[in-house]
Amino acid sequence: MKKQKHLHKHEKAVRDLKTAKGQIDAIIRMIEDDRYCIDISTQILAVISLLKKANTKVLKTHIETCIKEAINASEEKTVESKLEELEKTIEYMEKHM
Amino acid sequence: MKKQKHLHKHEKAVRDLKTAKGQIDAIIRMIEDDRYCIDISTQILAVISLLKKANTKVLKTHIETCIKEAINASEEKTVESKLEELEKTIEYMEKHM
Amino acid sequence: MKKQKHLHKHEKAVRDLKTAKGQIDAIIRMIEDDRYCIDISTQILAVISLLKKANTKVLKTHIETCIKEAINASEEKTVESKLEELEKTIEYMEKHM
Amino acid sequence: MKKQKHLHKHEKAVRDLKTAKGQIDAIIRMIEDDRYCIDISTQILAVISLLKKANTKVLKTHIETCIKEAINASEEKTVESKLEELEKTIEYMEKHM
Repeated sequence: MKKQKHLHKHEKAVRDLKTAKGQIDAIIRMIEDDRYCIDISTQILAVISLLKKANTKVLKTHIETCIKEAINASEEKTVESKLEELEKTIEYMEKHM
Repeated sequence: MKKQKHLHKHEKAVRDLKTAKGQIDAIIRMIEDDRYCIDISTQILAVISLLKKANTKVLKTHIETCIKEAINASEEKTVESKLEELEKTIEYMEKHM
Repeated sequence: MKKQKHLHKHEKAVRDLKTAKGQIDAIIRMIEDDRYCIDISTQILAVISLLKKANTKVLKTHIETCIKEAINASEEKTVESKLEELEKTIEYMEKHM
Repeated sequence: MKKQKHLHKHEKAVRDLKTAKGQIDAIIRMIEDDRYCIDISTQILAVISLLKKANTKVLKTHIETCIKEAINASEEKTVESKLEELEKTIEYMEKHM
């Protein structure tokens, strides 16, 4: 039951992740069927876009749950560290997006 | 047998794709286990980087096989259209990478 | 005097922005001097990386000043709207980075 | 005169580069005027998108001129090295876009 509750928290991101997995399967089949390289590239780029969306959804949920909860609970140290984490994530996005 | 031959052509990209699929499975399990959002984001961004590499490998193989074959066969029209496709792919990368 | 104070707030980002401007000037001169296209592309991609860094610095400063100030002042509504803005910026980064 | 001819070859990319320069000036003025960080970030991300477009235009022109000329002149070695360069550029894009 607990797993369902956690999945629910990132429900939309999980949907994107599962779709991305299915698309990767389809790309591997395209390669097996010797489909044209350019079409394969186009599909990989589409999965990249989808995963970017999943990442945005995870971070939005993070801001709306973890960060807001720490702010509302006035846990200064926790808020401080969560904001620092967010800065690092934005830096990580810069390098990986 | 034919499938193996085609998989061989994009062997390195297929390896990245299969790794990416495994990583996505692991991310979904992280969410089920209520792992921290920032760690989930970091993993998604790592899969994005891996898929970018897979795309680069597919395009390199395309240049080294399809495009070179058309050039060597002096099929002017085919070369023309393959170079146009490559231009479109570079444009597509601009929007999706 | 006030301008200097504001520039100071985003001092590092301003330095990157001014460097990026200088690099763009240099790229235009490369084109005037008929330098090789691939070298021109490489320079443009370097400016893109630099501007991504500048953006990260602006957002870090924003989190450390505007967002922290609102949290410390317990201005609930302001905090709420600033976190929403941050979500939108992360979404905007997804599309433009 | 020669400079004009070269500028003409990358005319559209030069226009984007000059626009990007002007936008960076405007961003620095925004910072001087203590404009809101999120708006500054949005403008930087817009310049990144514009520079990505400029890069695509440079590479398209490269394919349509340098690469096609080498192919038409049947300079096998030159074609080989230009295709290799293009592969490297695609790899460079993967890391910097």
